[in-house]
Amino acid sequence: MQPSGYRQLTPERLDATFAALADPTRRAILARLASGEASVTELAAPFAMTQPAISKHIKVLERAGLVSRGRDAQRRPCRLAARPLAEATDWLERYRRFWEGNFQRLDALLDELKAEPKGVDSQKDGGEQR
Amino acid sequence: MQPSGYRQLTPERLDATFAALADPTRRAILARLASGEASVTELAAPFAMTQPAISKHIKVLERAGLVSRGRDAQRRPCRLAARPLAEATDWLERYRRFWEGNFQRLDALLDELKAEPKGVDSQKDGGEQR
Repeated sequence: MQPSGYRQLTPERLDATFAALADPTRRAILARLASGEASVTELAAPFAMTQPAISKHIKVLERAGLVSRGRDAQRRPCRLAARPLAEATDWLERYRRFWEGNFQRLDALLDELKAEPKGVDSQKDGGEQR
Repeated sequence: MQPSGYRQLTPERLDATFAALADPTRRAILARLASGEASVTELAAPFAMTQPAISKHIKVLERAGLVSRGRDAQRRPCRLAARPLAEATDWLERYRRFWEGNFQRLDALLDELKAEPKGVDSQKDGGEQR
């Protein structure tokens, strides 16, 4: 389903992506860029942070390949570059069966109960997971 | 599709999850635990690393809620705790349209081409409208 290129990433690249995402300001910057490109000044506006501080965060995002900059020399607008996010998701997807396991087991149980002859109403909910 | 609880996470929790994932040894430990619980000694075996160094990584994973420890006082086996991975994936999924955009546009184009009525060969290009 995913282009096979996604699987060829180096560990360093995943390190950089996850490290870049481990900060709420950087995640907020990505969220803002998801609605369109923006200059550093525009990106800094909603934050109680100096522009140099924001610039530093943007540099981390750029190094991780999550933000690219336009060529307009004056403005150099920032854009979201989503490919590393796809690669990170690809890595996380391998573990999907672990968090979905509980729901699948519950589904299977419900299917079994439905398939059983009537009169099992009393066991309905069976199991909150501890 | 996802349990609504996944959306109530605090930013600190996502910070901890992404920071924990930003290291190849920690990702390898999670990959090992995906095939079953293991003691610290077992986890350390494949790495060219001292046991205290591995223990440190495991502590980071524990603090991020990605690993839980069993109660057996001697062995305290480590287990994968996948919920933070689900939350991280949930966050990343918001950006899926950015990396899938290109494929969707291509799909839409192919659908359009397929959906065109048969037997239009003769009027192929609708030249009249020029």
